[in-house]
Amino acid sequence: MTRAAPRLFVEGPLSSGRTLTLDKPRAHYLLTVMRLKTGDSVRLFNGRDGEWSARIIDAARDTCGLAVEARTRPQDKGCDLWLLPSPIKRGPFEFMVEKAVELGVSGIRPVISEHAQRSKVNTDRLRTIAIEAAEQSERLSVPEIIEPRPLADQLADWPGGRRLLFCDESGEAPPLADVLTGRTDTAGKVVSGVGQLFGDVLDGLLGPGGPGSAPAPPDRNPWAILIGPEGGFSPDERKRLRAHGSVVAASLGPRVLRADTAAIAALSLWQALLGDWRG
Amino acid sequence: MTRAAPRLFVEGPLSSGRTLTLDKPRAHYLLTVMRLKTGDSVRLFNGRDGEWSARIIDAARDTCGLAVEARTRPQDKGCDLWLLPSPIKRGPFEFMVEKAVELGVSGIRPVISEHAQRSKVNTDRLRTIAIEAAEQSERLSVPEIIEPRPLADQLADWPGGRRLLFCDESGEAPPLADVLTGRTDTAGKVVSGVGQLFGDVLDGLLGPGGPGSAPAPPDRNPWAILIGPEGGFSPDERKRLRAHGSVVAASLGPRVLRADTAAIAALSLWQALLGDWRG
Repeated sequence: MTRAAPRLFVEGPLSSGRTLTLDKPRAHYLLTVMRLKTGDSVRLFNGRDGEWSARIIDAARDTCGLAVEARTRPQDKGCDLWLLPSPIKRGPFEFMVEKAVELGVSGIRPVISEHAQRSKVNTDRLRTIAIEAAEQSERLSVPEIIEPRPLADQLADWPGGRRLLFCDESGEAPPLADVLTGRTDTAGKVVSGVGQLFGDVLDGLLGPGGPGSAPAPPDRNPWAILIGPEGGFSPDERKRLRAHGSVVAASLGPRVLRADTAAIAALSLWQALLGDWRG
Repeated sequence: MTRAAPRLFVEGPLSSGRTLTLDKPRAHYLLTVMRLKTGDSVRLFNGRDGEWSARIIDAARDTCGLAVEARTRPQDKGCDLWLLPSPIKRGPFEFMVEKAVELGVSGIRPVISEHAQRSKVNTDRLRTIAIEAAEQSERLSVPEIIEPRPLADQLADWPGGRRLLFCDESGEAPPLADVLTGRTDTAGKVVSGVGQLFGDVLDGLLGPGGPGSAPAPPDRNPWAILIGPEGGFSPDERKRLRAHGSVVAASLGPRVLRADTAAIAALSLWQALLGDWRG
């Protein structure tokens, strides 16, 4: 198997003929860990200019100079999908962030709820994890990670038009696949009587074109996925969420999932049914 | 929030009036970690007799006697879904096992492929992790975990009627949601021209009952999900997989997922579209 050239996220602009010097950790990674030498290829992205091939032109002990050559992929828009996780223990939380980046989120916005296990997170460290996950997963951008905010504040200035998926453990909400593909009202109830499951897709198939028309196009509306802490949300928080105009509640099945599992499951389903897994 | 009584997996039979004595680690967990006392309630399951309430009748330093009282849930059949993971580094592999149990797998059968990072796993330790995850997730059974076997052996005596989902990173396979819900041939190609996405569900809706009939029932066929190691499968292995009569290939989107992420994503989608998340 031929190994693809290593990929690195850089901050500066990328264009043909530019040169840049990597910082020590990245120079160490390329030269010592990956054992690259002058003349070897790498790939670079910065979240704005697409992906570029570059060549090592200067390899000293602690420094590595690169010359940018040609664009290998145009910048994509990516998915407009936020993850709003309640901070849990550090290990599983960092793991959740890594997986969320692999699964294509555009932003990570921690929320402090009543049962949150921590009110602070190390956003610098999370950003390092996010950069590595973006490099590894062939993404063209690194999601923004903001400082934690109280749930009430997040809900108070919630952007209009962005749906907020509330992963509800109470057993009262409809299944997640119904919510993502069916027509739901803002309380998370599936509205359509016929074809609750895959309602919108069914509409696409039975609609103007009738059977034989193409499946419904991917949902281009912005979404966010809210993941509660261990112990879930308080009765008061649940009430406030259910009353919020942008919130749709969904169930993630009959078993109790840990917060990190729930986040990965919900993000995967969103990508598979509404996001860029649909090809 | 009222905390539910702790749940423990036990090996022996459960019926009303039986008494049992816990081993040291479990006695320590209940009495020291959870701080339970004589008279307090716990819940027990053994994978065969459902879930039972029990009461602590004897609490000494290193021992804990329980009296089984009443059945609180009948035994369910569970999903017939295997995970076939290629062993990866210990941390992510144990994590994958924990998540697979939360997501309802009935068996974990590690496969040794050409690029496998390890050929041995500690099945005793994995079983301990699986028991804890089953207790935590409110499952009524603990999945069987067998010793790793070479991929070729697994394929040679593959049980007829069990579909084997091959998570294919080549970009040639159809999206996973199509494969799980559409009609696919054994090479993983979606056969139906109309309504590729959600084909079977559409059949359910447009079939005998026409629009308005109930969605197709959950798929009761046994499935297995094969997850490759870092670096994926070799060209030879890929050829053999694609030629196998039970294998269906599917794509998990445009980004490169780590093996543990891929496993959790595929299991979540299976549960949401074919398994017990459909309510």
